[in-house]
Amino acid sequence: MTDVVIAGIGQTEVGEHWEIGLRDLAYDAIHAAIQDAGGLKPQALFVGNMLAPNLSHQAHVGALLADYAGLGGIEAVTVEAAGASGGAALRQGYLAIASGMVDVALIVGVEKFTDMVGSEVDEALATTSDSDFEAVQGMTPTSQAALLMKRYMHENDVPADGFAGFALTAHANGVANKNAMFRKAIKPETYAKAEMVSEPLNMFDMAPNADGAAALVLTRRDLLPSNWKSQLVKIAGSAASSDTLALHDRKDMLYFDTAQLSAGKAMKQAGIVLDQINFFEYHDMFSIYAALQLEAVGFAIKGKGWKLAADGSIGLKGKIPCATMGGMKARGFPGGASGVYQAVEAAIQLRGQAEANQIAGATTALIQSLGGPAATAVSHILQRLD
Amino acid sequence: MTDVVIAGIGQTEVGEHWEIGLRDLAYDAIHAAIQDAGGLKPQALFVGNMLAPNLSHQAHVGALLADYAGLGGIEAVTVEAAGASGGAALRQGYLAIASGMVDVALIVGVEKFTDMVGSEVDEALATTSDSDFEAVQGMTPTSQAALLMKRYMHENDVPADGFAGFALTAHANGVANKNAMFRKAIKPETYAKAEMVSEPLNMFDMAPNADGAAALVLTRRDLLPSNWKSQLVKIAGSAASSDTLALHDRKDMLYFDTAQLSAGKAMKQAGIVLDQINFFEYHDMFSIYAALQLEAVGFAIKGKGWKLAADGSIGLKGKIPCATMGGMKARGFPGGASGVYQAVEAAIQLRGQAEANQIAGATTALIQSLGGPAATAVSHILQRLD
Repeated sequence: MTDVVIAGIGQTEVGEHWEIGLRDLAYDAIHAAIQDAGGLKPQALFVGNMLAPNLSHQAHVGALLADYAGLGGIEAVTVEAAGASGGAALRQGYLAIASGMVDVALIVGVEKFTDMVGSEVDEALATTSDSDFEAVQGMTPTSQAALLMKRYMHENDVPADGFAGFALTAHANGVANKNAMFRKAIKPETYAKAEMVSEPLNMFDMAPNADGAAALVLTRRDLLPSNWKSQLVKIAGSAASSDTLALHDRKDMLYFDTAQLSAGKAMKQAGIVLDQINFFEYHDMFSIYAALQLEAVGFAIKGKGWKLAADGSIGLKGKIPCATMGGMKARGFPGGASGVYQAVEAAIQLRGQAEANQIAGATTALIQSLGGPAATAVSHILQRLD
Repeated sequence: MTDVVIAGIGQTEVGEHWEIGLRDLAYDAIHAAIQDAGGLKPQALFVGNMLAPNLSHQAHVGALLADYAGLGGIEAVTVEAAGASGGAALRQGYLAIASGMVDVALIVGVEKFTDMVGSEVDEALATTSDSDFEAVQGMTPTSQAALLMKRYMHENDVPADGFAGFALTAHANGVANKNAMFRKAIKPETYAKAEMVSEPLNMFDMAPNADGAAALVLTRRDLLPSNWKSQLVKIAGSAASSDTLALHDRKDMLYFDTAQLSAGKAMKQAGIVLDQINFFEYHDMFSIYAALQLEAVGFAIKGKGWKLAADGSIGLKGKIPCATMGGMKARGFPGGASGVYQAVEAAIQLRGQAEANQIAGATTALIQSLGGPAATAVSHILQRLD
């Protein structure tokens, strides 16, 4: 099999799209990706979506979007793994191309949060945690993350502003990303004065729920003309792993097993070691998730992930740049689209088109999409093809 | 690549499982399938589920079930395409095995309808139709099917009892299936006197929503020991297709394009013609769907599908036996599990284990899972391996 490559990318601005619905949002990203791929015609559509049956009263989004995008007749399916839905859709598309049964696959991640009021969103988000053992007690993903963060701070003697670096880096990187929801840098004082959401987690320790859609066109390299013009990015590694939804069942809730397992497997497939990764798009839905991913993947030893944010290592010129286009904190969290945004943003970096945010000489990226507290983790290694 | 084979099957009784929840139901089917597969260890789980985020307040079912089944760590994802979710999950598992990236895949279809009252179920089911153009008008999948049936009867001069054969056949076949919800044969008078649900569709023209779970273990033939004991069934063809969710956008609403396209593609892949298919597990959510599938696949000419039910052609000893274990009408309709039940039942036939319902000498089956009025169709050709 020749390489599976990203031949086209598309994305919408992330934010509050009051004026358009789920299908229009997805259409814009799909249209952009197909155009970017020189009009390649997809044979299969994989939709990454997390909560449309609740938030948009719309299931069966695969067939709906295939039709709306003018691709009626092709196979279409929705892939759901909570917050990791986008990464999981990418993986299903990758497997389809790798099987040789599909030549051109379209991946679209889409989510529409803002049509619902906050309590409805909270209720919908609660379905992604363990209904019978957590949600039923009133626990939300946010309160769960706060408990995790509190325990982490206690065990590792993290100061009150220990997590500030995650938000500072994300917001700094969001400024130049025209699709980011928040394009304003913040100061350490802003973090220090931020309102608490669920102690010790403040409003800068979590990403904003937002509307957005991102799309990718995947194909095999040998199917493209030899004079293909745009810089290709290959999917060098792809892997996923699952864990308990509920935290109480874990041996060590402060270690994201699935983040380690899936990243390790993807790196092995790509034939690379950690040092070869030029930047890391993590799933910074909560700053505690980002810290635990840095540790699980191996960029920091256990209990020290937060220090990479505190000492500038995750900055654009740091040792391991993260959230290079603003991450979920500043670009925004469009649910099941997030994992596809990661891939689109990594492709922009690897094509050398990230402008002010460009990681100089970047050839290899790790992107990781999480469902819940890494109950699902989907990892991909993307590489610039020369 | 060697053949992708079904190495294990499992199913629960279909019905009203008040006493157990979604995860327990799925566990029973998974456990049975893995045991049937001689303890093969799955590396990936594909869940076919349609409405758990609404009906069970539980999304992220992939990771949940992987953990609950003692398979923590493996990759797990939910695949949704409305009523075709089970067929779509089977297809994703097939693609994963075909890619060579996964050696053993577990497919589980599961749905739990009975924890909700009727109006909640109707609301949830309405999300599978076009929210903005159909559901918003109060149209439900059932009222939509009734309109389709009425138009079909008008155009083709079908008598009032023209569809009775679908229910008569299904109920006759359900009697000997110990997992069927309804195990009682019905008489023509029963159909004739049945209460209307949405005119002209009566209660025997639609399948009952029910709880149930079914599972499959897929692998590659070359990974099994040469002395493998149980009869293997191979997936000789796999294909899917999509169409508009809303009926008003179709060129001809009385022709299921996706049923034709996906069945044709699956047959082509398998290298077979229609005559070689020994039985057909259709998606008889509504009797009108069954008639339209018989026509689209090619067993009847347009407008004459209902005659195959009326003249006994779809019976166990007929020209093209259908719903051989009771179909959705008598076995019951457990939402996203239905497509997996079809595969399990077809495998039982192809293994020669269908006892009183056995299709003598059956070597080749077509199974077809629909989402909505064939807005999605997923078709598989299963064959007995010698």
